[in-house]
Amino acid sequence: MATKKQINHLKYALEPKSVAIVGASRTPNKIGHVLIKNLLDGGFSGKIYPVNPNAKEILGLKCYPNVTSIPKKVDLAVISIPARYVNKVLDECGRKGVKATVVITAGFAEVGNYKDAEQMKYIADKYDMALIGPNCMGILNPKLKFDSIFLPTYKLERPKVGRISFISQSGAVGGCLLDLIARAGVGISKFISYGNATVINETDLLEYLKDDDDTDLIACYIEGVKDGKRFLNIAKKITPNKPIIMLKSGKTDKGRAAAKSHTGTMAGSMTAYRAAFRQAHIIEAQGINDLYHFPKMFVQPFCTGKKVAVLTNGGGNGVMAADAIEKEGLELTEYSNKTKKELRKVLPSHGNVGNPLDILGDADSRRYEQALSILMEDDNVDAIIVIILFQTASIDSSVAEVIIKAMEQRKKPIIVVSTGGEYTNMHRRILDSSGVTTYRAPMTAVQALARFVEYNQYKQKITKKK
Amino acid sequence: MATKKQINHLKYALEPKSVAIVGASRTPNKIGHVLIKNLLDGGFSGKIYPVNPNAKEILGLKCYPNVTSIPKKVDLAVISIPARYVNKVLDECGRKGVKATVVITAGFAEVGNYKDAEQMKYIADKYDMALIGPNCMGILNPKLKFDSIFLPTYKLERPKVGRISFISQSGAVGGCLLDLIARAGVGISKFISYGNATVINETDLLEYLKDDDDTDLIACYIEGVKDGKRFLNIAKKITPNKPIIMLKSGKTDKGRAAAKSHTGTMAGSMTAYRAAFRQAHIIEAQGINDLYHFPKMFVQPFCTGKKVAVLTNGGGNGVMAADAIEKEGLELTEYSNKTKKELRKVLPSHGNVGNPLDILGDADSRRYEQALSILMEDDNVDAIIVIILFQTASIDSSVAEVIIKAMEQRKKPIIVVSTGGEYTNMHRRILDSSGVTTYRAPMTAVQALARFVEYNQYKQKITKKK
Repeated sequence: MATKKQINHLKYALEPKSVAIVGASRTPNKIGHVLIKNLLDGGFSGKIYPVNPNAKEILGLKCYPNVTSIPKKVDLAVISIPARYVNKVLDECGRKGVKATVVITAGFAEVGNYKDAEQMKYIADKYDMALIGPNCMGILNPKLKFDSIFLPTYKLERPKVGRISFISQSGAVGGCLLDLIARAGVGISKFISYGNATVINETDLLEYLKDDDDTDLIACYIEGVKDGKRFLNIAKKITPNKPIIMLKSGKTDKGRAAAKSHTGTMAGSMTAYRAAFRQAHIIEAQGINDLYHFPKMFVQPFCTGKKVAVLTNGGGNGVMAADAIEKEGLELTEYSNKTKKELRKVLPSHGNVGNPLDILGDADSRRYEQALSILMEDDNVDAIIVIILFQTASIDSSVAEVIIKAMEQRKKPIIVVSTGGEYTNMHRRILDSSGVTTYRAPMTAVQALARFVEYNQYKQKITKKK
Repeated sequence: MATKKQINHLKYALEPKSVAIVGASRTPNKIGHVLIKNLLDGGFSGKIYPVNPNAKEILGLKCYPNVTSIPKKVDLAVISIPARYVNKVLDECGRKGVKATVVITAGFAEVGNYKDAEQMKYIADKYDMALIGPNCMGILNPKLKFDSIFLPTYKLERPKVGRISFISQSGAVGGCLLDLIARAGVGISKFISYGNATVINETDLLEYLKDDDDTDLIACYIEGVKDGKRFLNIAKKITPNKPIIMLKSGKTDKGRAAAKSHTGTMAGSMTAYRAAFRQAHIIEAQGINDLYHFPKMFVQPFCTGKKVAVLTNGGGNGVMAADAIEKEGLELTEYSNKTKKELRKVLPSHGNVGNPLDILGDADSRRYEQALSILMEDDNVDAIIVIILFQTASIDSSVAEVIIKAMEQRKKPIIVVSTGGEYTNMHRRILDSSGVTTYRAPMTAVQALARFVEYNQYKQKITKKK
């Protein structure tokens, strides 16, 4: 757990104007090299100070033998050197007045080296330093083009600027997540991999992000929480304004043992966590994919109604969506008589006017447009799941424009489900990058919609109370 | 339900040497045009007879005014004409001696047109014709390059030749599935979309595939079963030799109503289905993805043991795998002392020798190779889940060779899990196309492995009985 000052100093970690890279290296593929290369390639506008006693210059930047020899102010030190030297460097950072550090180096509590871990905490506290890590992957802030992720960008894609912040105890899970998010076209505000949480832990990060103007939603991967009571208090303060989506790993005995060996975390019982999640209105993710599937939904217009319409050009996919809607506690709505009458006018006579509304395998963009605009006007419809099978002969890219136009009215949630191969994925990416919420399977879409509606109902309830 | 003769005549539908396309069209994008184009482009070596009274030639092929005017023998007629003409053409097919028909046309039982549906069955029975459909998407047999799927190949990719047969009541779901399978690099023997099942139903197809030498495994999407008792009997005869993986849709009341409107099927209660599945040792798929995730596992060496080792270069992903293993009834194994000793020799001193075995973020191909070969020799290890995060600096494509070499020994199941974006997906595709079983998420891999082990245990039990 960190002090108030340390939490405030997180600003220097997440929005640094000057960064020292301790363990800077001239050797490509070395972490200390990739770190500098990514900052330069990413276009970071702040100062970069490589620290390495044996080099004069790295990637065109002047190198310093140690942190104290840097002539200017340093906001953040990113440290990637052997474990045994870390605390010495941290003390130097403190004396230099560095406000925040990211310790990438592993080999502390997670391998039983508690002595150095305690010493690390002592030093950070002494100097009011916000220390992230050790055993972590660092920070990404696309808005500032600040990137301390030590993995090459061709291997791990970086997401665009957005308003969702991600925190991950595991660097590897965080890395996978970043890669998945980038691929899905989801934008992020801040990404923080915090590793062993020796000083700054998950609750400290939540406390900081609570007041971060660039963060609308917080998604987290955690293996355990260090201080349950404080965590619950902070979470309760956040969720009325910003949803929290959380994947708790180490759910089982074996998983907990693995978590202990991984980040030295006591993972605690899942029953206790579930109760806490419910109390604090934290949305539980069941797997890594939910950590970007659920956040994607929250760009949709506010919706507390459960009455869902399903529009599809493939009957079977509609049946799967209907199953999922009932399973997740939403309602497959009954259209108004007016809607039914209007739908009958525009749809082929051999189709059924029902819900799911199967507009058949020969549906084109025009039929989607007509059906969608009728459903949009029906007060019995709170949200619309639009299943588009791009495999059919009559569907082309123009259906994307129909969806985007409908979405831009921002009347009610419109979610697209498209299942398929390369042609389908290409179209899903077009829709994603235009801000449409898309999914690959009906079940995923419905689960995300259900969590979104539940959260909005909670929000409506507390707003009424006020 | 079909007669024995009709079921035998399925051979002419699935392996035709001559095909009439009734409703052949000169207009690109029309189903009757795409059908012929796909046969030609696909390299079908049999005879193709377009039937259209108003055309002389389509895509360079001589056109016939009706089926009876074709001078040669016709194995299969694929029919795509308005519903009201279908039965007349079917009667012509019968008189011509056509053994099998695929009726793509919709507008029968699924819209309440029971009269024409009954008439259709009457005609098919009269001539012993194997009739697939109506309201279906047809057949794909990559080995014979026979493709009656009326969707363009650039929109819907076709899978390569393999030994898994897929049957799907819904054409749309089947189409999505084909597309997903092709993308995942899974090979297929036969794909059949059977729609309303007016003559040939799911059980008839199972009965045929039971004795099909090219089929090792059957995966199905069904909305309902027409004759429960016979279905159960046939399934029980198949599963001792070939696994059946089945997605039953219309699981809920609303889903069942949707299924009725979709293919005119009475979907029945899920409790009854689950009981039948258990009795017949059918593996239940929970969603469309399981329909290719589970089959992929069955190329692995026979394995009845539950003791799983997890090898990973990312701790958090290992924790998720450990959770999944416990949840799915498998066991996170304890290595032998010899294994532990040998692992300690080759692994970095700051890592833990545990299960999951985290070989750390700086692991390279060599470290994977050493750890994998030690685990392969341990009798306490029945199967190995290898998590590879391709995002790290030290991992490159050469790790694929390590996996392929280990797999080729065929000692025990080796399953790869890699989560990420484009770089990761590219490597997963390399592995997939080399016959390695890969997944994107730890949970998916573990679920598939658990179903695989359960099936093998069943097989072992019945073999012992004999």
